Amino acid sequence: MSLTEEQKAEIAALRAQSAPTRRATVAALEEMLYVAMPVLDHGFVRVVDYMGDDAAVVQAARVSYGRGTKKVSEDAGLIRYLMRHRHTTPFEMCEIKYHVKLPIFVARQWIRHRTANVNEYSARYSILDREFYLPAPEHLAAQSSVNRQGRGAVLEGQEAEDVLDLLRSDAMRTYDNYAAMLNEGIDGTPVDPGRQGLARELARMNLTLNTYTQWYWKTDLHNLLHFLSLRADPHAQYEIRAYAEPMLQTLDAWVPATAAAFRDYRLGAVTFSAAMLAVLRRRLAGETVEQKGSGLSKREWDEMMGALEG
Amino acid sequence: MSLTEEQKAEIAALRAQSAPTRRATVAALEEMLYVAMPVLDHGFVRVVDYMGDDAAVVQAARVSYGRGTKKVSEDAGLIRYLMRHRHTTPFEMCEIKYHVKLPIFVARQWIRHRTANVNEYSARYSILDREFYLPAPEHLAAQSSVNRQGRGAVLEGQEAEDVLDLLRSDAMRTYDNYAAMLNEGIDGTPVDPGRQGLARELARMNLTLNTYTQWYWKTDLHNLLHFLSLRADPHAQYEIRAYAEPMLQTLDAWVPATAAAFRDYRLGAVTFSAAMLAVLRRRLAGETVEQKGSGLSKREWDEMMGALEG
Amino acid sequence: MSLTEEQKAEIAALRAQSAPTRRATVAALEEMLYVAMPVLDHGFVRVVDYMGDDAAVVQAARVSYGRGTKKVSEDAGLIRYLMRHRHTTPFEMCEIKYHVKLPIFVARQWIRHRTANVNEYSARYSILDREFYLPAPEHLAAQSSVNRQGRGAVLEGQEAEDVLDLLRSDAMRTYDNYAAMLNEGIDGTPVDPGRQGLARELARMNLTLNTYTQWYWKTDLHNLLHFLSLRADPHAQYEIRAYAEPMLQTLDAWVPATAAAFRDYRLGAVTFSAAMLAVLRRRLAGETVEQKGSGLSKREWDEMMGALEG
Amino acid sequence: MSLTEEQKAEIAALRAQSAPTRRATVAALEEMLYVAMPVLDHGFVRVVDYMGDDAAVVQAARVSYGRGTKKVSEDAGLIRYLMRHRHTTPFEMCEIKYHVKLPIFVARQWIRHRTANVNEYSARYSILDREFYLPAPEHLAAQSSVNRQGRGAVLEGQEAEDVLDLLRSDAMRTYDNYAAMLNEGIDGTPVDPGRQGLARELARMNLTLNTYTQWYWKTDLHNLLHFLSLRADPHAQYEIRAYAEPMLQTLDAWVPATAAAFRDYRLGAVTFSAAMLAVLRRRLAGETVEQKGSGLSKREWDEMMGALEG
Repeated sequence: MSLTEEQKAEIAALRAQSAPTRRATVAALEEMLYVAMPVLDHGFVRVVDYMGDDAAVVQAARVSYGRGTKKVSEDAGLIRYLMRHRHTTPFEMCEIKYHVKLPIFVARQWIRHRTANVNEYSARYSILDREFYLPAPEHLAAQSSVNRQGRGAVLEGQEAEDVLDLLRSDAMRTYDNYAAMLNEGIDGTPVDPGRQGLARELARMNLTLNTYTQWYWKTDLHNLLHFLSLRADPHAQYEIRAYAEPMLQTLDAWVPATAAAFRDYRLGAVTFSAAMLAVLRRRLAGETVEQKGSGLSKREWDEMMGALEG
Repeated sequence: MSLTEEQKAEIAALRAQSAPTRRATVAALEEMLYVAMPVLDHGFVRVVDYMGDDAAVVQAARVSYGRGTKKVSEDAGLIRYLMRHRHTTPFEMCEIKYHVKLPIFVARQWIRHRTANVNEYSARYSILDREFYLPAPEHLAAQSSVNRQGRGAVLEGQEAEDVLDLLRSDAMRTYDNYAAMLNEGIDGTPVDPGRQGLARELARMNLTLNTYTQWYWKTDLHNLLHFLSLRADPHAQYEIRAYAEPMLQTLDAWVPATAAAFRDYRLGAVTFSAAMLAVLRRRLAGETVEQKGSGLSKREWDEMMGALEG
Repeated sequence: MSLTEEQKAEIAALRAQSAPTRRATVAALEEMLYVAMPVLDHGFVRVVDYMGDDAAVVQAARVSYGRGTKKVSEDAGLIRYLMRHRHTTPFEMCEIKYHVKLPIFVARQWIRHRTANVNEYSARYSILDREFYLPAPEHLAAQSSVNRQGRGAVLEGQEAEDVLDLLRSDAMRTYDNYAAMLNEGIDGTPVDPGRQGLARELARMNLTLNTYTQWYWKTDLHNLLHFLSLRADPHAQYEIRAYAEPMLQTLDAWVPATAAAFRDYRLGAVTFSAAMLAVLRRRLAGETVEQKGSGLSKREWDEMMGALEG
Repeated sequence: MSLTEEQKAEIAALRAQSAPTRRATVAALEEMLYVAMPVLDHGFVRVVDYMGDDAAVVQAARVSYGRGTKKVSEDAGLIRYLMRHRHTTPFEMCEIKYHVKLPIFVARQWIRHRTANVNEYSARYSILDREFYLPAPEHLAAQSSVNRQGRGAVLEGQEAEDVLDLLRSDAMRTYDNYAAMLNEGIDGTPVDPGRQGLARELARMNLTLNTYTQWYWKTDLHNLLHFLSLRADPHAQYEIRAYAEPMLQTLDAWVPATAAAFRDYRLGAVTFSAAMLAVLRRRLAGETVEQKGSGLSKREWDEMMGALEG
């Protein structure tokens, strides 16, 4: 991760500030506020603002259920109930805002989550930095032979070296040519006064997809959980999972009861289809069931057995 | 407005609390926090949480435009620029949460704004209070004869009295019958032990549309402005405008620069069609233009002239 | 269900029309097109337009996966795969539009589904018909004593009669007073020339929540499935389930492969939490597990056992 | 534009099909259906499905306004009224689906429109084609000196040649290295059996942002108009405007009355702020107004004068 001195100073200044508020505050998240958590080789994710806490979820549920919820005396129990029965609107009452620095190909996956607010650095307006993602050796993986969208063994030896060389040299060359086409010095004047310089909105097309961009990304707690359930999943591409992991830590700090229920009922949960349930009932009744005759396809059978073995 | 003693105590307790935060805080909005602003005869609107301020809008814009915005030195100027050119995403970076008590027929208009988070009191789960909206005499208006969805003169004399009597007696009777069908005492035991009591989810259908409900309603600043531009408009039904007015006050307290730009570029602005612009150009060139020959329909002509007269 | 002669003639005319199209068509859904399927005592739901079919889901998935999907030779198999792994975007490629007549209290539940397009009859602009929902005797249920938002036994004898009388007479009286306050004849002239008549936008507040309204409601297939998974569920209130049932029939006619996968993987499926999975593994290994010592609360245990018993 | 022989055959087959439907059909759009309209050097946009027509907008408005709209006898007039007063929901009742082939940097702008359904070709799953965008000479523009996100004069002579050479050679080299790292032959077997081949989800990061991707993009008419109002605007980047132009043609064919109203009230319209209106009123009253003393900033003044000069 590479923060400029200017950014470090800005973060220190923000962290030094303190004002009294009547709003709900979460000490554990305040502790993390503004701090950039490193991700990949040059990326980071940091919380820059938040609204609400576990109690705000409970409060919203109690508005919905009115007098009725008095009996559910314990907040964590109510949160578990809401999570289990997919009552989603109380979780929408909390909001969080992140500042993220990430490679463009990761940003393209991330932006698929539409229920969020985004302000991305504009390469139409400004000039991108010379930073691009290169996988660490342990993440330089071969194509999986069994899963079309997965990875197989880690590349080694000469092939690994060659791949890294290609990625690095292509990113450097395309960036340098981008800069050359722009022909802009730091003060905005042309580097080569004999040339006009290509428009920024055009020059950017020469950059490779591992170039870093950055954005502010704001979402509510319900949609954050949905994002994390997909992106912290082992099937997610490693490079986006690398962002989901520290975001899970911010979740734990922010709303510990919600985070615990989420891990139990969503991250660690498995859904069985009607046909799978039928198999389960037969097995629990003591019957030996084979895939043949189970009503499940080979693929479904394997997925079910995988889930049961844990 | 009728707050219970319990609610008053809760508000006082929330207002008494104070914790240090590193987040952006807005003193003027903190001052209003949790306070119920009365609306109509029994309703209220109050801010229960917020995220961000004018500076957060600017900060988001600067992330987008990067080095490029350094030249726009003044924050209010940048906010005016964003508002004028309908750059909406920076305004999405702020969030606000209201607690609102409102008649059901107003709630049905309000809910049409889909980009918001809502937790409404559930009459399926709990029992609604015996509170319903009755217009103040000056708002008891006749149907407009020129505008199918507007109001005409205020009703007076016997007709006004009769209407109020009908509204009041029907609301009281239907509520009393609702309570009778429920057959539930305060402690949940039957009032009449000889009856079972109708399910809450059914009994509620007997209530009239002026019965009060309440909800938590949370939205981002961009969508709040959109809501206010429609609901603080003179064409909006008075009963929803009555909520938009105090919400405009919370806007002024929260994000004064955004609020000022909003009043200038949205609330006070007028859009002229291509055909209207053609008329305007002819008039500015000294030509006398009549509706006939203007290319505008009678209705468009009148709307344009109305806007120009202010 | 009460269609006017005018509406019947309009439906017949629409059903008689036929034009050639190059678009995907579904014969079974064409057969149902425009026909009003009766729901409750005066309501209906009818399909008025649609876009796409099962093949459109497959086509969208193949665009995403490109050359890669050639191996998944069978469309139904691909649809099952998409449903099982919650790949939702291909299902968003189909769209359907319904015309629904429904009681206002049902409309208030329905509108909570925000990802849909709605045009509702405006009682601000026009006058509602004198139609309101009265439960059939077998749906007139007592409040459940175990579930705060559920129903218990059906009311019988005098209590049932009394409840129906109250619901009917209150709805009739409030409607009649609504009409009296409006003071509008069919031709728009005052019934009583000595009165002005209350504005429509005000008079409507006197109606009870079982008054029928109507709307056009349009959504994509993914969001329709989400709606049906919640509203065709046994926990949904009967009065909205009554709409979900015929909508499920339109689903079967429209996209049979998607509908079959939906019934297996969503409607008939059960999600087990991490803690429940641990119990399941112990039981499958032959161990006898009791609630005490299972790590599950009494409530979770009961829910799990209920699911396993089917 | 480069369609494969396979794609051409598929389009011909789809265009040859015809089935009777009871749905609304639009002959002029049927004529265009499935046909790929070329955009930029290798891109295209084509309509692959649609739902509704101008009459569906009117029908939805009439559901909302009920008996009330009988007086507005003419459909085009009602559509103009809806557009002028920003009644947006009736336009949401129509839906259209496009298949688009476009450079990645254009796709990144396009995806900012969140209220749409998207299925994009997955480079995680499959291999992208060797196609990338190179600007035509007349679109190879210098950075604007007055507008940070605009273009200035067209580059000429040696600079133009150099830029095109760089763009072309970088795109070719990075693609060739992408293919080399993948090490996959057409049949999926390794080109070089001595290497494993890098995972597709990683290799794609080596591609430049002018590489073409493709997607299915589906939206409702209201959101399509919003997209076109921003992307057919002269301030939009040329490369996305190049897509908006043929999409405007499909709009004209599909919903001619809506398209005409849109051009008058949105594309050709101008919004004046409260302060600008004040200036306008003074000028119409015969007063000579200068920027100084107008209450407008220099920038606002220039924008207003520009709009009035047309």
